[in-house]
Amino acid sequence: MQAVYNIAEICAQLGITDVVLSPGSRCAPLTISFARHPGITVRTVPDERAAAFIGLGLAQSQRRAVALVCTSGTAGLNYAPAVAEAYFQQIPLVVFTADRPPEWIDQLDGQTIRQADLYGAHAKGTFTFPADTSHADAQWHAARIVSEAINLAQQFPAGPVQVNVPLREPFYPKAGEELRFEAVRVIRETAGVPRLPSPEFVALRRTLRATPRVLVVAGQHHPDDALLLALRQFTAAWQVPVVGDAIANLHQPVGATYDLRSAPISHHDVFMAVPEPGLKEALRPDLLITFGQSLISKSLKLYLRESAPAQHWHVQAAGPVADTFKSLTRIIRLEPTTFFKQLVSTDYAMFGGLVSAEDTAEAQGPPAEAAAASLGDFDLGSIPDSSNEAGPVRLTWPKAGWALSEENAAEKVSYATPWHKADGWAKGFLEEFIGRPDQPFNEFTAFHHTLRHLEDGTALHLANSMAVRYVNILGIPENRRVEVFANRGTSGIDGCTSTAVGAALAQPERPVVLLTGDVAFFYDRNAFWHNYPMPNLRVVLFNNHAGGIFRLIDGPRQQPELEELFETRQPLTAENTARDFGLRYFTAGTFAELKLALSAFFAPVSGAALLEITTNSVTNAAFFEEYRKAVKTAFV
Amino acid sequence: MQAVYNIAEICAQLGITDVVLSPGSRCAPLTISFARHPGITVRTVPDERAAAFIGLGLAQSQRRAVALVCTSGTAGLNYAPAVAEAYFQQIPLVVFTADRPPEWIDQLDGQTIRQADLYGAHAKGTFTFPADTSHADAQWHAARIVSEAINLAQQFPAGPVQVNVPLREPFYPKAGEELRFEAVRVIRETAGVPRLPSPEFVALRRTLRATPRVLVVAGQHHPDDALLLALRQFTAAWQVPVVGDAIANLHQPVGATYDLRSAPISHHDVFMAVPEPGLKEALRPDLLITFGQSLISKSLKLYLRESAPAQHWHVQAAGPVADTFKSLTRIIRLEPTTFFKQLVSTDYAMFGGLVSAEDTAEAQGPPAEAAAASLGDFDLGSIPDSSNEAGPVRLTWPKAGWALSEENAAEKVSYATPWHKADGWAKGFLEEFIGRPDQPFNEFTAFHHTLRHLEDGTALHLANSMAVRYVNILGIPENRRVEVFANRGTSGIDGCTSTAVGAALAQPERPVVLLTGDVAFFYDRNAFWHNYPMPNLRVVLFNNHAGGIFRLIDGPRQQPELEELFETRQPLTAENTARDFGLRYFTAGTFAELKLALSAFFAPVSGAALLEITTNSVTNAAFFEEYRKAVKTAFV
Repeated sequence: MQAVYNIAEICAQLGITDVVLSPGSRCAPLTISFARHPGITVRTVPDERAAAFIGLGLAQSQRRAVALVCTSGTAGLNYAPAVAEAYFQQIPLVVFTADRPPEWIDQLDGQTIRQADLYGAHAKGTFTFPADTSHADAQWHAARIVSEAINLAQQFPAGPVQVNVPLREPFYPKAGEELRFEAVRVIRETAGVPRLPSPEFVALRRTLRATPRVLVVAGQHHPDDALLLALRQFTAAWQVPVVGDAIANLHQPVGATYDLRSAPISHHDVFMAVPEPGLKEALRPDLLITFGQSLISKSLKLYLRESAPAQHWHVQAAGPVADTFKSLTRIIRLEPTTFFKQLVSTDYAMFGGLVSAEDTAEAQGPPAEAAAASLGDFDLGSIPDSSNEAGPVRLTWPKAGWALSEENAAEKVSYATPWHKADGWAKGFLEEFIGRPDQPFNEFTAFHHTLRHLEDGTALHLANSMAVRYVNILGIPENRRVEVFANRGTSGIDGCTSTAVGAALAQPERPVVLLTGDVAFFYDRNAFWHNYPMPNLRVVLFNNHAGGIFRLIDGPRQQPELEELFETRQPLTAENTARDFGLRYFTAGTFAELKLALSAFFAPVSGAALLEITTNSVTNAAFFEEYRKAVKTAFV
Repeated sequence: MQAVYNIAEICAQLGITDVVLSPGSRCAPLTISFARHPGITVRTVPDERAAAFIGLGLAQSQRRAVALVCTSGTAGLNYAPAVAEAYFQQIPLVVFTADRPPEWIDQLDGQTIRQADLYGAHAKGTFTFPADTSHADAQWHAARIVSEAINLAQQFPAGPVQVNVPLREPFYPKAGEELRFEAVRVIRETAGVPRLPSPEFVALRRTLRATPRVLVVAGQHHPDDALLLALRQFTAAWQVPVVGDAIANLHQPVGATYDLRSAPISHHDVFMAVPEPGLKEALRPDLLITFGQSLISKSLKLYLRESAPAQHWHVQAAGPVADTFKSLTRIIRLEPTTFFKQLVSTDYAMFGGLVSAEDTAEAQGPPAEAAAASLGDFDLGSIPDSSNEAGPVRLTWPKAGWALSEENAAEKVSYATPWHKADGWAKGFLEEFIGRPDQPFNEFTAFHHTLRHLEDGTALHLANSMAVRYVNILGIPENRRVEVFANRGTSGIDGCTSTAVGAALAQPERPVVLLTGDVAFFYDRNAFWHNYPMPNLRVVLFNNHAGGIFRLIDGPRQQPELEELFETRQPLTAENTARDFGLRYFTAGTFAELKLALSAFFAPVSGAALLEITTNSVTNAAFFEEYRKAVKTAFV
């Protein structure tokens, strides 16, 4: 078993600190070695579906690989939804599935399925641990593939890998026997950071300058101060608008005072619904630059597909690239931070020097002195710069539009302005609409009020399907460090709660708030079925006793099967669940109750809490319909 | 969409009556057409993991294919545990997974994964419905693969198939639009029933006669009167013992009075634990004949592997065969009923006539007159004979051992006797042990008492892992038509409750009783999360607040991690669950309470009920240890 025990040591050496176990006998050697390894924290969760999403939540929060361990049989299949989510959300999971040795497959023994390549197209790779490690070459093989698996999981784009571990009895050390962790060799992988070669840099910069209508759209991305800073420098220097959903996490303050025109556009879900051809034409880009993963906003996606920009650059260092807007013309193999940094840099050494004097002149744009002279226009504060190992540096920012000639700048501004105007209008409209007197109690407004209560530093988890959509319309309150998470890799409802639970376990010092609907909540109740406290977890359940989304879309709400087969009306309240799992329980069914409940619920009291906001799906649909009508007529 | 709507019509024509849906928008055309088809009953279950096991329970009870319908994305992955169970338990499921059309895969759209061949090695086949059915050939293709998929699912050995259905918008018919079900052509498949050719028949019969120590072991099998009758005729005629676990369903009365020596052996889990080399030697077979699927009894499996019979015939008409006892020498491609019938038949037309006069004499054994003369020895009552289309026939049974010469018969009897003696001893021992005075309240005894209350006609579902083991030791009460089900295809705990729920929905007129432990129960609580009444469902939950099995096996109970990582102690009671789902709730924590509770619980009152029997896992382990010690010393 020493080769199996070494798995824990290799994981620890390669930076894995957290392992989520599910009980089983076949997996005992893995369980025991991880549990006894001093560098590893183990947690055990009986429902493997929840366990895997908890692992995903841990990995997502900590931004490093988490290992999962389960026994043989269907245990590993219960991981499949989380594995698929990890694959598409690019989260590193190392899945150890205990197995019978190969000779026992298909021999009618219990808990035996065909575990090789269990996750098919939804794992980055699959490895088979040797069943017999008595030969020295087998020991080399065993240790090597664990290193390979962890490295593969963490390589960009990160994702899940499976290591299938066939095990023969005895599974357990003798009573009192101590495990040894050997000084086993590991293989570490150091990633290179691609830079844009000079000729390409010059060409892109030329295009950027020559194209009046340039739009940046960010997909799902974790908050990254270096990226946000580079992006704001880019948008300021080039005077281009940048649009991002809540899950793009552009709203994070980066410690900088910036001009409004470099602020991200976040209310596109509101103003994209305005049926105003003039506005649509004004917003149309000729060059679309994107980075990150998926978009929530269907209206933005549809708009960009219709507007068919002549060029679409997608910036992504490696991995397959989606042609989300049917307009992709160039894939730029850079990290977005590098891309934006390079395109505003006056430090040419950064990209390896230019090739010729002509290129230099072209690339430089306004003379370096002009840029230098305008230093101090924006105070960027102290920002940790990932490219600077000496630690946080005090940065300043050159004048907005410095990368452009005056003529170019005017064109750019005239394109950016309607974006910022529309965004400003949408904010104002929402505020007015949400503030309407005499409205019935409804979840759209309840979401708005709830969002206002989020503390600085909150990890906000948004469940599929309506929670993430409502929040994308309403927007994250400005100037708050609220990090937004949502399982938009596959947009399933199956593990939203477990993912938030994983986040709460990962960062116990930080408030973790989950906003969820009733279907997602009850689907994944086993998220709470374990023995680890989550004093920092706050779950806000918007219970409309149905999959309310189906009443909001035209097709199903016109069918006689609406209530039974689409909404799937369900009578549960969360009170019994709260009782089962010792969650402090709050309820609200009116605005007055909600106001009181929110204050009590978000008060800095330790102990997981659940706030159940009960609304009526018919009222919700009617109010949301009013909103949709109002937005269509209110734009001026 | 007509090609999609036709799916419902094809399913109905090919005998599918029940469809389990889960809500979604992408799958709406399937949902609506199944819901509106007059020949189909649809039920909707939000948690796809539970939905698929409910479908499996329906198919298992009704012994015909059930269709599942889910939306795109991870919905279908939540089916995976049930699909694997269906694959290994050979249950026909036709899984319709709605999908985006191929051009949208990997384009960062929501709920989009790689659904082609989603179940890999755990589906019998996978089909892709055409995305565009405007061409006549595509319509032919669309209809054809649905027939093919259903036929494949139902072909022996039955199992799950996937039909991936890419769908483009619009998904919904217009408000008020009626669906047409066309008279679409279907392809029906008629199975042939293989018979043993004469030379092989003669050879097998010769071997049977010449081998003194012949043992029949039945694996998991549904109760089948024709099979049971043939098997009893076989065991009587050839005087061989037959052994079967509870899930082999040999205990069913077949309306026949038979001699004790043809009664099935069912307490092998008890007497196999007796460390008596003389007994083991006496029981050792030279020819082992098996049929059916898996065995629960680990002790029987280990014993048969050790005893290494010179010949092992496995009788199975088609499909891969396991070498469970490491002794397989011949695979006989017959249905077990045909095999046993042919080997006791005096009607030689049944197997196509014999090839020569010599063979005839050999095959016939004792002259037909001798057999005829002994008619009436056993009254078999009225038995539905599947081979006789005229309906039930009154049967009589020739004299026991009639297929053998006197010398052969004596040898056979001297081998069969110790099996029957051991079985009888085990029954007596158990009764005495269970009846011990002053024992603490424990789950082993509580299982025994619960089993005594099962009504005739009950469908008994046994959860993994301890419920099925306890019942296999204790045995099903004799002469009761109790049909035993357990998910022993993969032996997972993940869908035991849902499977029982499916059974209760399938056969509302029949009591469906689930015996389960707490881990399996809480794992699969979403089994109850739907709106369909199950007045006939009785769930007996043996709650020891842990995976108690781990305290019963030597390895884990010696580890310091026992409670946290193996047992996974959990504090839940089912009271809140019962409240959530409107289950009538009973509890018992002492023998006196159990006695009262069992009577009330099993009383013929309509409405799903839950009986929670609370025991202590330490007491349970101590009592079971006592049992294990006693069985080792009590045998005389």
